[in-house]
Amino acid sequence: MTGEFELIRDYFADIGGDLSGSVQLSVGDDCAVITPPAHQDLVVSIDTMVEGVHFPFGTSGDRVASRLLGAALSDLAAMAASPAFFTLALTLPDTDPVWLKAFSTRLAELARQYGVQLVGGDTTRGPLTLSVQVHGWTPAGKALLRSGARPGDRIFVTGTLGDSRGGLETLLNNIHGEQVPYLQHRFFCPEPRLDTALLIAPFATAAIDISDGLLADLNHILEASQVGAMLNPGELPISHELHHWVGEAQSRQWALSGGEDFELCFTAPALVEPKLAWALRDHNVAVTCIGQISETRGIVLAEDGQVLPVTPQGYNHFSGTGNLR
Amino acid sequence: MTGEFELIRDYFADIGGDLSGSVQLSVGDDCAVITPPAHQDLVVSIDTMVEGVHFPFGTSGDRVASRLLGAALSDLAAMAASPAFFTLALTLPDTDPVWLKAFSTRLAELARQYGVQLVGGDTTRGPLTLSVQVHGWTPAGKALLRSGARPGDRIFVTGTLGDSRGGLETLLNNIHGEQVPYLQHRFFCPEPRLDTALLIAPFATAAIDISDGLLADLNHILEASQVGAMLNPGELPISHELHHWVGEAQSRQWALSGGEDFELCFTAPALVEPKLAWALRDHNVAVTCIGQISETRGIVLAEDGQVLPVTPQGYNHFSGTGNLR
Repeated sequence: MTGEFELIRDYFADIGGDLSGSVQLSVGDDCAVITPPAHQDLVVSIDTMVEGVHFPFGTSGDRVASRLLGAALSDLAAMAASPAFFTLALTLPDTDPVWLKAFSTRLAELARQYGVQLVGGDTTRGPLTLSVQVHGWTPAGKALLRSGARPGDRIFVTGTLGDSRGGLETLLNNIHGEQVPYLQHRFFCPEPRLDTALLIAPFATAAIDISDGLLADLNHILEASQVGAMLNPGELPISHELHHWVGEAQSRQWALSGGEDFELCFTAPALVEPKLAWALRDHNVAVTCIGQISETRGIVLAEDGQVLPVTPQGYNHFSGTGNLR
Repeated sequence: MTGEFELIRDYFADIGGDLSGSVQLSVGDDCAVITPPAHQDLVVSIDTMVEGVHFPFGTSGDRVASRLLGAALSDLAAMAASPAFFTLALTLPDTDPVWLKAFSTRLAELARQYGVQLVGGDTTRGPLTLSVQVHGWTPAGKALLRSGARPGDRIFVTGTLGDSRGGLETLLNNIHGEQVPYLQHRFFCPEPRLDTALLIAPFATAAIDISDGLLADLNHILEASQVGAMLNPGELPISHELHHWVGEAQSRQWALSGGEDFELCFTAPALVEPKLAWALRDHNVAVTCIGQISETRGIVLAEDGQVLPVTPQGYNHFSGTGNLR
């Protein structure tokens, strides 16, 4: 068995390049050795995905790689960190060379794209489970936290929300149609908003990435910052594809609590909004203001003069909604 | 389900203290934030354990915690690194509070003992799988590698070898007896040789921790250093308990290729042996010279004038031996 798993390791040789020059020793010893760049903080996050829980049984290796690394790097984006290196703990039921090749090829592509080097890992036999730890650097003391939102701050989100949940629903219900490829791509291939994060970091007071759903994750900012929020559901950024497939009401529900969007939700003072807009003028990811921070704790939705309190789990008047897990 | 797993996270609040002062932000944000101490390299290793593969089904939570953290920290010892913090990715089939309490309590004890703080993690549902990433610091450029062994260097090991394999055999074959508790303790509770590593680091030219078996792991040093080794099997440190239970021949076999010892194997020039002995004079872990590095590649066993070539997998004349995995 050891021989078999040593073979597997060959799939993961030389994944990603060391752009930062900080990696002294990569795979091949008991540990990897990294020399931290001067005046930088290390930022780390570990994420696990299990077949049948985080992605359907039988998902192809390239899709699993996209989902795994995209979601993990999204945590670095939420801290406005620059990605540097990662480790991979891979538990496999068997050694399917087709799956492994697709997985490692896609992983290598993404590692190059995002500038992260694979510096270590572990390969074991068992039910398909993947843990990845991502590591990034921020200027010392400058990591973007959840705890800095202040009353009056504007609340922003990147991209569009609810697509990933839509993609999952098309998978689970075996739905076909014009919008399906886009929605499933959004589910399988989250794009960590690393570049956007660096552009907004000078202005943002708090940030999180949306994994549990906008309301749940915004609530983490609100609790850490001890504030509340008022959202305008009419401002929620919803893709044409999602809107076309399920209409206004369902789109909004998934945008608020669908989860797994891996977009950023962040806050910034109203005064810096022009500067923020200027910083993002040539940027190819939409950033939308969806509400503002209030002193009153909790979240309310306000549209056309109507005010609707919601729980972090979703609308009160929709039953059965909530998280995917 | 999210609520359930958020509850689980409560078991892991405040595990370990920050002795180094480097942890700026622990669990509770998207990432942990660490300020690297000046002039130190970061050393990282990730390890996975799967129920039924690395430990028997039904193993108690405290034993799993001991095995998991002990084995992981052993990789830091092999680099002569000082442990600092760790992350935990925990995949659980259900939420058994007795198991979780035993696991988290023991994990917290060991974290305090070894001075590592739990700074982040992920909890998911699935077959029992645990990945832990350990992080330590070494003075810049001073990590102890596998690649520095030179012909003439003496080869040393810490503690006794083969006990862990003996313990596993008593478990698998349901054996009882006077030696069993000691041997099973050695299997479930590896003691990472972190203190020993810091004492030997000024003198050692190469090191590895013994996880696959002495021959296999020594061979990693030999390949990285492009040298060979001559071992005296009569010098292998074998515990009274193991010897008493299975006798000389079986003890030696397990000492050479049993695996999962989590002792250190290291090399040091013959000239520094007196200084090494002096550095270890009050140390409570035995360090035994078992042979020396040669120019001729490969490993030979030499005893009483007889020379026996061996493969990294074990004795040639024992079939069916090898790794546990």
